[in-house]
Amino acid sequence: MMRTRPLKVALLGCGVVGSEVARIMTTHADDLAARIGAPVELAGVAVRRPSKVREGIDPALVTTDATALVKRGDIDVVVEVIGGIEPARTLITTAFEYGASVVSANKALLAQDGAALHAAANEHGEDLYYEAAVAGAIPLIRPLRESLAGDKINRVMGIVNGTTNFILDKMDSTGAGYQEALDEATALGYAEADPTADVEGFDAAAKAAILAGIAFHTRVRLDDVYREGMAEVTASDFASAKAMGCTIKLLAICERAADGGSVTARVHPAMIPLTHPLASVRGAYNAVFVESDASGQLMFYGPGAGGAPTASAVLGDLVAVCRNRLSGATGPGESAYAALPVSPMGDVVTRYHISLDVADKPGVLAQVATVFAEHGVSIDTVRQQGKDGEASLVVVTHRASDASLTGTVEALRKLDTVRGVASIMRVEGE
Amino acid sequence: MMRTRPLKVALLGCGVVGSEVARIMTTHADDLAARIGAPVELAGVAVRRPSKVREGIDPALVTTDATALVKRGDIDVVVEVIGGIEPARTLITTAFEYGASVVSANKALLAQDGAALHAAANEHGEDLYYEAAVAGAIPLIRPLRESLAGDKINRVMGIVNGTTNFILDKMDSTGAGYQEALDEATALGYAEADPTADVEGFDAAAKAAILAGIAFHTRVRLDDVYREGMAEVTASDFASAKAMGCTIKLLAICERAADGGSVTARVHPAMIPLTHPLASVRGAYNAVFVESDASGQLMFYGPGAGGAPTASAVLGDLVAVCRNRLSGATGPGESAYAALPVSPMGDVVTRYHISLDVADKPGVLAQVATVFAEHGVSIDTVRQQGKDGEASLVVVTHRASDASLTGTVEALRKLDTVRGVASIMRVEGE
Repeated sequence: MMRTRPLKVALLGCGVVGSEVARIMTTHADDLAARIGAPVELAGVAVRRPSKVREGIDPALVTTDATALVKRGDIDVVVEVIGGIEPARTLITTAFEYGASVVSANKALLAQDGAALHAAANEHGEDLYYEAAVAGAIPLIRPLRESLAGDKINRVMGIVNGTTNFILDKMDSTGAGYQEALDEATALGYAEADPTADVEGFDAAAKAAILAGIAFHTRVRLDDVYREGMAEVTASDFASAKAMGCTIKLLAICERAADGGSVTARVHPAMIPLTHPLASVRGAYNAVFVESDASGQLMFYGPGAGGAPTASAVLGDLVAVCRNRLSGATGPGESAYAALPVSPMGDVVTRYHISLDVADKPGVLAQVATVFAEHGVSIDTVRQQGKDGEASLVVVTHRASDASLTGTVEALRKLDTVRGVASIMRVEGE
Repeated sequence: MMRTRPLKVALLGCGVVGSEVARIMTTHADDLAARIGAPVELAGVAVRRPSKVREGIDPALVTTDATALVKRGDIDVVVEVIGGIEPARTLITTAFEYGASVVSANKALLAQDGAALHAAANEHGEDLYYEAAVAGAIPLIRPLRESLAGDKINRVMGIVNGTTNFILDKMDSTGAGYQEALDEATALGYAEADPTADVEGFDAAAKAAILAGIAFHTRVRLDDVYREGMAEVTASDFASAKAMGCTIKLLAICERAADGGSVTARVHPAMIPLTHPLASVRGAYNAVFVESDASGQLMFYGPGAGGAPTASAVLGDLVAVCRNRLSGATGPGESAYAALPVSPMGDVVTRYHISLDVADKPGVLAQVATVFAEHGVSIDTVRQQGKDGEASLVVVTHRASDASLTGTVEALRKLDTVRGVASIMRVEGE
């Protein structure tokens, strides 16, 4: 049954992931051929610096002209691991025009232009697969869009950025401050020289947009995702979290509203109970928790980044796309039929942990409690600590909308007896 | 793009899982239609007791003649949730002959006759999907055979039976004995009246056969799986496990030999470190740990049984099979090209925890240590406890073959100073 004419693959980008993809395509060529039903051949590799020595890659395959490679006309599958918006976007749409399917690891591009790319793939009858764009090697896109295709997903909540999880885990386990933990992450190669995309939550927000889109059959773009980074998280926040049996994680949370009529997507640091499966995700690992009507609670766990794990996801997609090609079919495309509205952050309902610096005198608690009540935010617990005329109030609320909580905090700031709002953190996973 | 002629589904079996499949097909009909691209219609339901009232199912669809239903000729997909070998096997092969694809949850049948069923599906150009056969709602078959299709899987180790995990978790957390914990599991509905299939490991062994087959692209049948039940596990074993920072789980373990030339599959109770992700899987939950060359360590976690979770897996497959049908293609079939030999249990290499009742006199440890050395089994630690002329020796070994360990134990039994071998347990997850 084996076809002898090979399927031709163009590799765009040959950095940490691309070089690993090329390596596995060579070392596991026989296995890949057996699983696909035809050999796959690396037909060209587009790079920026052709002079760099790339072990195991025939220099004759290397080119700096990615556009010409994609336009060759004999390419079956384009593997895009360049990242960023351009030239990746143009190269992908050109690939479709020239009769190739695409496997991409580009979360930023998919979060911004996923709908247009899917439309282009569909127009030309090609596949667009991108398991590697979210949570590295962890199978997540395929389970969400295929295994759970007969279920109703209500929530996807996960740790989808290894850099920030490494930093927060370090802060949690050693009591280090943010900067110290970030410095260690940088020294160990877990954080990039410019860590903005990770610590400010841009990377996680792109993944949240992709996950929400698939889970809710609704277009969700990066701009729809509320985003708060984790640079403000302090050692004192971790102490507060511990006091209530929690730890702090940077979470991507995609939720269907209780009435089912809208969805939200957000990324922010949050306290979660130590008993929650996500609390024990250590180091640079990723994990995603999925709640559905019928399946109940599922969790997917594994390495969220790195050359080899990401290459594993790329190659899984490559095998699937090649199989589709041989059978003359395409896999599932975009599913956005539900077209639910994406609500703003103010509509999100969750719990909050608020630390206030207050005057240490009688009646302060009563004043504060009144403000919460006036804004319809019900208090679960209050802890009062005072010394030397200074005092702090730690309030944990019941579930309330983010808009109500924001209104509450604004009003609290206006109280003479409230000297400052030391921290506000959402509490998830209960 | 929506096709209006519905795809027709025949449901074989309407127990806990089947009734849930029928319910979701009705309540989520619009979503299923949108995701498939055509409506799906429940065309018939084969049951044993037609008089039983089945809420939400049109009595006109109910029949006791499953064969006639499958032979109707207008059925697109047969969903088989009867279980057992016959009549399920004949009904499935008949379905293929009459032009239907099949979604099955039947682990026993697939573990025994998977190759023949796949061949029949292939012969008639139909799909055979069975995500629900292993670990309920947890997406596992599809990730293994599609997401990791470009990777080399070296080990699949999991808790794939909820009943036994419930019992072992209860023994661990309360100190209860096996019978007491089993009684509670029965009372709560986690164990069946005849718990043999679960506690003797038959259920887990069937799943191990299926997982090993997919992971290693090799035919593995139920008979190839070494199997030990968990009825012999005692409260004292749990105490021993705790003393070494472990707990006890009934594990299904599928491994590629270090030289890559063969595989093994086995089910038995084993000690695993409390720090291992599988150690914290509580109650009736399932979890499967997968180790691959490129992806590293992945874990999949969720409810392993129950009507709704299993129905979620069935419906995910149903959507996939219907999509394939509309596009005129079939999904990936059996992949057994590697055809690696399945080695016997004696070839498995792991660590062991052995408790011996010995005479409390000088020289016993030296005698025992000599026997281990003679059989090539290297000792990691020994703990000696003595009182009133009785003593016990607890030996934990380094990695050794099961055959060497068996030889060691046989020789130990012949020593005058060894009064008995109290327990032997494998140690995994390190």
